[in-house]
Amino acid sequence: MSRNDRKPDEIRPVKLEIDTNKYAEGSVTITVGDTIVLCNATVEEKVPPFMKGQGRGWVTAEYSMLPRATHSRSIRESAKGKLGGRTMEIQRLIARALRAVVDLQALGERTIIVDCDVIQADGGTRTTSITGAFVAMCLAMNKLEAQGKLKTYPITDYLASVSVGVVDGEALLDLRYDEDSSAAVDMNIVMTGAGEFVELQGTGEERPFSRAELNALLELGEHGVRQMIGLQREALGANALKIGSHGSGGLA
Amino acid sequence: MSRNDRKPDEIRPVKLEIDTNKYAEGSVTITVGDTIVLCNATVEEKVPPFMKGQGRGWVTAEYSMLPRATHSRSIRESAKGKLGGRTMEIQRLIARALRAVVDLQALGERTIIVDCDVIQADGGTRTTSITGAFVAMCLAMNKLEAQGKLKTYPITDYLASVSVGVVDGEALLDLRYDEDSSAAVDMNIVMTGAGEFVELQGTGEERPFSRAELNALLELGEHGVRQMIGLQREALGANALKIGSHGSGGLA
Amino acid sequence: MSRNDRKPDEIRPVKLEIDTNKYAEGSVTITVGDTIVLCNATVEEKVPPFMKGQGRGWVTAEYSMLPRATHSRSIRESAKGKLGGRTMEIQRLIARALRAVVDLQALGERTIIVDCDVIQADGGTRTTSITGAFVAMCLAMNKLEAQGKLKTYPITDYLASVSVGVVDGEALLDLRYDEDSSAAVDMNIVMTGAGEFVELQGTGEERPFSRAELNALLELGEHGVRQMIGLQREALGANALKIGSHGSGGLA
Amino acid sequence: MSRNDRKPDEIRPVKLEIDTNKYAEGSVTITVGDTIVLCNATVEEKVPPFMKGQGRGWVTAEYSMLPRATHSRSIRESAKGKLGGRTMEIQRLIARALRAVVDLQALGERTIIVDCDVIQADGGTRTTSITGAFVAMCLAMNKLEAQGKLKTYPITDYLASVSVGVVDGEALLDLRYDEDSSAAVDMNIVMTGAGEFVELQGTGEERPFSRAELNALLELGEHGVRQMIGLQREALGANALKIGSHGSGGLA
Amino acid sequence: MSRNDRKPDEIRPVKLEIDTNKYAEGSVTITVGDTIVLCNATVEEKVPPFMKGQGRGWVTAEYSMLPRATHSRSIRESAKGKLGGRTMEIQRLIARALRAVVDLQALGERTIIVDCDVIQADGGTRTTSITGAFVAMCLAMNKLEAQGKLKTYPITDYLASVSVGVVDGEALLDLRYDEDSSAAVDMNIVMTGAGEFVELQGTGEERPFSRAELNALLELGEHGVRQMIGLQREALGANALKIGSHGSGGLA
Amino acid sequence: MSRNDRKPDEIRPVKLEIDTNKYAEGSVTITVGDTIVLCNATVEEKVPPFMKGQGRGWVTAEYSMLPRATHSRSIRESAKGKLGGRTMEIQRLIARALRAVVDLQALGERTIIVDCDVIQADGGTRTTSITGAFVAMCLAMNKLEAQGKLKTYPITDYLASVSVGVVDGEALLDLRYDEDSSAAVDMNIVMTGAGEFVELQGTGEERPFSRAELNALLELGEHGVRQMIGLQREALGANALKIGSHGSGGLA
Repeated sequence: MSRNDRKPDEIRPVKLEIDTNKYAEGSVTITVGDTIVLCNATVEEKVPPFMKGQGRGWVTAEYSMLPRATHSRSIRESAKGKLGGRTMEIQRLIARALRAVVDLQALGERTIIVDCDVIQADGGTRTTSITGAFVAMCLAMNKLEAQGKLKTYPITDYLASVSVGVVDGEALLDLRYDEDSSAAVDMNIVMTGAGEFVELQGTGEERPFSRAELNALLELGEHGVRQMIGLQREALGANALKIGSHGSGGLA
Repeated sequence: MSRNDRKPDEIRPVKLEIDTNKYAEGSVTITVGDTIVLCNATVEEKVPPFMKGQGRGWVTAEYSMLPRATHSRSIRESAKGKLGGRTMEIQRLIARALRAVVDLQALGERTIIVDCDVIQADGGTRTTSITGAFVAMCLAMNKLEAQGKLKTYPITDYLASVSVGVVDGEALLDLRYDEDSSAAVDMNIVMTGAGEFVELQGTGEERPFSRAELNALLELGEHGVRQMIGLQREALGANALKIGSHGSGGLA
Repeated sequence: MSRNDRKPDEIRPVKLEIDTNKYAEGSVTITVGDTIVLCNATVEEKVPPFMKGQGRGWVTAEYSMLPRATHSRSIRESAKGKLGGRTMEIQRLIARALRAVVDLQALGERTIIVDCDVIQADGGTRTTSITGAFVAMCLAMNKLEAQGKLKTYPITDYLASVSVGVVDGEALLDLRYDEDSSAAVDMNIVMTGAGEFVELQGTGEERPFSRAELNALLELGEHGVRQMIGLQREALGANALKIGSHGSGGLA
Repeated sequence: MSRNDRKPDEIRPVKLEIDTNKYAEGSVTITVGDTIVLCNATVEEKVPPFMKGQGRGWVTAEYSMLPRATHSRSIRESAKGKLGGRTMEIQRLIARALRAVVDLQALGERTIIVDCDVIQADGGTRTTSITGAFVAMCLAMNKLEAQGKLKTYPITDYLASVSVGVVDGEALLDLRYDEDSSAAVDMNIVMTGAGEFVELQGTGEERPFSRAELNALLELGEHGVRQMIGLQREALGANALKIGSHGSGGLA
Repeated sequence: MSRNDRKPDEIRPVKLEIDTNKYAEGSVTITVGDTIVLCNATVEEKVPPFMKGQGRGWVTAEYSMLPRATHSRSIRESAKGKLGGRTMEIQRLIARALRAVVDLQALGERTIIVDCDVIQADGGTRTTSITGAFVAMCLAMNKLEAQGKLKTYPITDYLASVSVGVVDGEALLDLRYDEDSSAAVDMNIVMTGAGEFVELQGTGEERPFSRAELNALLELGEHGVRQMIGLQREALGANALKIGSHGSGGLA
Repeated sequence: MSRNDRKPDEIRPVKLEIDTNKYAEGSVTITVGDTIVLCNATVEEKVPPFMKGQGRGWVTAEYSMLPRATHSRSIRESAKGKLGGRTMEIQRLIARALRAVVDLQALGERTIIVDCDVIQADGGTRTTSITGAFVAMCLAMNKLEAQGKLKTYPITDYLASVSVGVVDGEALLDLRYDEDSSAAVDMNIVMTGAGEFVELQGTGEERPFSRAELNALLELGEHGVRQMIGLQREALGANALKIGSHGSGGLA
């Protein structure tokens, strides 16, 4: 299986549409190839019990797939009566990644919840969710700022994510579902605008991988994240300048 | 509160887009005013245990709202660990209504599941789901027919639904959320192309209602359903003619 | 199948026994043919969180069937770990219907919960529950009034319910289980003493139904409800006069 | 608090009504003072997975209280989504006790489930359930025998249960709820017609108890069980003779 | 099957190791034959809601078995999503027994939770848990006393437990798993240092048992408990003297 | 906070005791500093439904912490009624890692389940579980081989895991709990005997991390894994030679 829709180091076509939901404080519909995720950010003027009274905010995320986001229909987690391990793992990852670029003190005692609902899945749903959720979170922050509720803009840097992997001995950027499911090595990379790592999750699905392979994948990943951040800047328009007033550099 | 976006007996702008999901056997995105529902029909080549070996098929439905489909964010039923009463009530209604126009014998021993996921809610999500789900089900039937799996086309008539209600003493067709939440009387009507009732659910939310009011609401409802069925015919194009080869008349 | 235990427009023998539970604030054992329901009303001096501090009361209901209320034993919902859709649908209906004839302001900041436990089921368990629950609620109100806790008697009108349906082409009042399970059309009607509708739920189980059939069923239903309300008056005795001091007319 | 409704060694008035449910294979309504329990026995022509293919039968039981069986309303276990520890403990006890007098081989590969639903509780609900459940089980066995499904009558002896306890230093038989809740020592005794123990559960609720107290309580218990068995014989009428054709003696 | 590892009236080798967990306020690893239980006592400076503001404390317990504590692996209750009936029954028993020798007033408004986790099971896990949990609770009390939080030492007497049973017609003390599973009669006895009963749970697993058998089993049980209490005294060392300053006698 | 119990590149004292459970097919108690985990491997002669009939085996794992494994007591997941996200994430990781060094074809159609129960936690419970679980799995394989059930020894290489992190600007190997909770960067590394990566999970807890930091952590991790594998070899004794008969090199 050799990739024929693009070169090994290319990402799929990306579309970042903003304000696609009339109620959410920030909303983004992100399309990466045939993967489509709705990212809706909600602002709640309270924090979880364990954070009360500290004057700091919180950022969290939820992730879900529609039953027919995939080739064959999957049973709803609401019908099963519990969240699966994969869902929990992904939503914990999204939330942790977002918090890495938020100054919770500057946010103040409120919570931002970003819901990532996968409408159609063709690989990379967790990385696409992170890239879209970051923009939805920025939009919600802009709304808070416009309402005069923030003294300092709380987002300290850009944040985006891509998947990379080794398929048939070749290192590939941004895997489709068919590539992902035959990958020997699979890695999700979350990076900041400054070109540093926020999360790195690599798995030898079919076999262990060497240090040299790791390095090749990291190069590809950095290349992909840089492009995603470029697209985030475009989508945010004039508001893009607010991010990282503290001074961020590198990839952005 | 007097309606100012249209006349009391008018429905909101409706859009019925087909084939909006690349995996589902039948898919429709239906928009009625600001209410948006994704309807994806799945064909499974088996029936529930209680129907095995009878040579007849089954049609079922599931309904869900995204957390931010509404003004304020609601908690996911998957996180709560159970389906709420409202969800169960609605998905039972959708499924029962769809089955009313399907010849289960003609369908053969297979199941059609229609998932109705509300992306944005502004009143009438259950009636909009039924109207959209009917078209998604037809598309899935067309695919089965094209595969040579059906001898007789199993859909016996059109099926659509609208809400009606009494707001500030006035009978209104197709209620927005703000109208619905202040309605004294609220009714959901599901009818066939032949102009007969499949489901009638009327509730005196604020006060009981008289026989005369009931009759006025039924007139409005029939008027609305007739328009919805016209739009379904358009969306189905050439395939529209297959429905009710047994001979249906009336509204269609 | 032609009905042979009574005429099509007759209800089954009804028994309304009051004060059948020594603890409940209001208790009724209602028997309609072979359907038996225990209705116990509880008064709690608090309201649900969403109603706190408004000075208004709340009325709610729960519905359950004993495992052996039916021909074959059904598994307990407590053992399954969740309420089924049918149960939720019915208890929401009972509660909504009861609230339609209660002045929540006059009730004051307290809750009335009516438990409807079906001891034996032979059709019409939800309509029988409503008819019995209304009387149990009245008895609880009488106790509150006797304790001097009410300024105005909060029940504004009578409320009763019957089922109607079309079986073998014939419109029937008050269906037994065997009639109900072979009905082409099935309708539950909840009406007030003033002869107005509180709930109307009609379903074309086997085929859609016409406007003419609907009208015939409504006539039968009104006839049945009138008799049920007569029996409620008898059961309540001298207290019957308190209901609807605001002035109710019609059927009662 | 000194008992004034009867002597310390007297049981409350007992009523054992049979065939009180039209569907169950065996049904009993048992009343002991103000405690009322519906006992419905169901025959299922299968056994649990762990017993399949052994040619032996199984007896099990379920126990539940209506929400308003008690002074203040308790939340349904179906609404909580799980059975409480007390419920599980009691239904395990009832089932174990019943099995002690059943020849499972003679029963054949089928299951008897006895549902004990407490309609009103005034102490002793578990002992009353056992005494009633035994009779319901016998009635179900009689039906099986009448259908020619049994070679040997599978019930080997009578089985009944009473509670005893020490209240204010006095040993009492068959405790009311108010006595039970102030008892220093509390014991449930299940015995056979032959006067032997099947279950003995004694608890020092407020203080430990001595061997002498234990012996006094056992005397009272034996006395109470003997009376209960006499009442079971009456309720069973002519069928009473079938029990323990293997030859039981003692109390019965 | 005749017992060959020891005499019928002998207990298995017992080991009571204290302070085996670095975090718990009191910790004991108890080994009885091949049965091993970790007992960890936690002190929480609050009481359950139903006890708030009474100035009295509470003692509770939880019991669990590791999946591979037994011959064949059992499924975790956390994976099943609920506690089984056996688990609930046992942890209620442990807690009730512990409370019987605690002066809750003297404990003050705090809770002691004793976790009993069975690492390896070879019969008698509930009685072993009680015997170990008592010592863990004492150690936690000692810590509270050392911190000056107690005016009166709250433990009023020793408490230990053993199992007894009838196997192949012979009364045995302290049953191994293979003995327990073939026992005709099975009894768990919990006694105090003063030689009185706290809990007595006897079951005729295979057949009912007579008064004479009961007496023989009680003798054996008293004999076993006396030895267990001796071992508890040793394990507690100098602190052993604090127990029952109110004056306990008998077995201790 | 500067580490004073050992050098930054040193692991804590490790103890690997084998055969610590009398029932499990393979059992290991692993101690790393104050972290203690019981690893019990079970062999089941069946595979999950999705793998049936393929002639291949499966390896899975479960992870749990005793309530008092930590400073303050945590609520049991069995009592909560569901597994937490952290638990699911960890047990998925352990299982995935183990499978990376197992030839499932050689294992044949059977399942190995490794239960990792944390008795005491002081950082690194997931890495310690992997290191211990590998040995428990080997012991179970040895038993299968001794029973003549395996043609080829299915374990292809060693597998061990350590944690590394950046604390106060310093890269540390094998973090204690206090170090872990103040780490800016945290990484778990799973490697094979051949010195290749199986899993790499790095998180910028407090800030993103650079490529240079990543490289330093990987060096430390490789150093730690090499020592862990040496200890595994010792614990396995003569059986150590069987691993990777296919020919593994590198670290081992």
